[in-house]
Amino acid sequence: MKSKEFSWKYIRTENTIDLKLFSAQFEYFENPRIPGSEEKMVILRSSDSVNIVPITIEGKMIFVRQFRVGIRAFTLELPGGIIDPGESPLQAAKRELAEETGHTTQHWQVMGKVGSNPVFMDSYIHHTIAKNVKETQRIQLDDGEDISLEMLTIEDVRRRLSSGSFLHPHTISGLVFYFNQLP
Amino acid sequence: MKSKEFSWKYIRTENTIDLKLFSAQFEYFENPRIPGSEEKMVILRSSDSVNIVPITIEGKMIFVRQFRVGIRAFTLELPGGIIDPGESPLQAAKRELAEETGHTTQHWQVMGKVGSNPVFMDSYIHHTIAKNVKETQRIQLDDGEDISLEMLTIEDVRRRLSSGSFLHPHTISGLVFYFNQLP
Repeated sequence: MKSKEFSWKYIRTENTIDLKLFSAQFEYFENPRIPGSEEKMVILRSSDSVNIVPITIEGKMIFVRQFRVGIRAFTLELPGGIIDPGESPLQAAKRELAEETGHTTQHWQVMGKVGSNPVFMDSYIHHTIAKNVKETQRIQLDDGEDISLEMLTIEDVRRRLSSGSFLHPHTISGLVFYFNQLP
Repeated sequence: MKSKEFSWKYIRTENTIDLKLFSAQFEYFENPRIPGSEEKMVILRSSDSVNIVPITIEGKMIFVRQFRVGIRAFTLELPGGIIDPGESPLQAAKRELAEETGHTTQHWQVMGKVGSNPVFMDSYIHHTIAKNVKETQRIQLDDGEDISLEMLTIEDVRRRLSSGSFLHPHTISGLVFYFNQLP
């Protein structure tokens, strides 16, 4: 029953279906437990994404409130988005924070990354912190976005995290990275 | 810039693409910021899933180590899986824990849920705790699974969570629920 590392054998890939946010492919693997097997697995391929824990000079954390069509409900999330071609995670974080919130800063830190969903996505979400952010420019939204900002105290964020009120797992993982790096 | 609740207007749905784990559809919505707009959004429809924080009678936490084709790497995750038709989250959690680890118990608690990914998935991941679990039966794996078990101390889990070593966001959110409900 012990898995041998790297023992799943890649067989072949079929299809490429454009799903706007990602392209879907089917890949076939041989399960090491079952010689000769061909397990069909779906993979969603996309660029990595990034999100930001933005702390204002007043010590508030900035969240974006937006409609999410997946669950047809409004969520409160950390700002973020998809990394554009040629961008580093940090460059994308700076751009997304400015576009979605109008806030900028010189004080950035990349905290780490988590798989978007390792089961069927090939991408990662990179978590960053931006400290001492200030409003310096106008918000610039994509056609698919309609966002409002909420400034929460750190204590309020901690309470909401504890009570399970955040609905997006990447907001939760970003906050875990943030609270774990506090002194 | 302030979003009005429920102000995204659903227009129509097109396509249904079978992707094995889910069916993909395109839905069109009118962005309240842009009257007359038709924003094309992809939605992946599937059953909800469940995962389990299993604590053994010796006080260890059980993790499953498995190959994940999305990132083509082995991950350490909480046990879990997709809820079958007609099952409650708790029934699915009991079945998945028994199938993947051979462990059972009478001491269950449903902690809460998080969107699988609210941006483009309609499903939720339900987080449960199973206390005083004991090995009572043989492991029964699906053809798409090859799993090994790792028993970690709670302190080790806390350290790995803090250092960002878990790669699956649903394992992170499950552990956040667990550590937040501790006295």
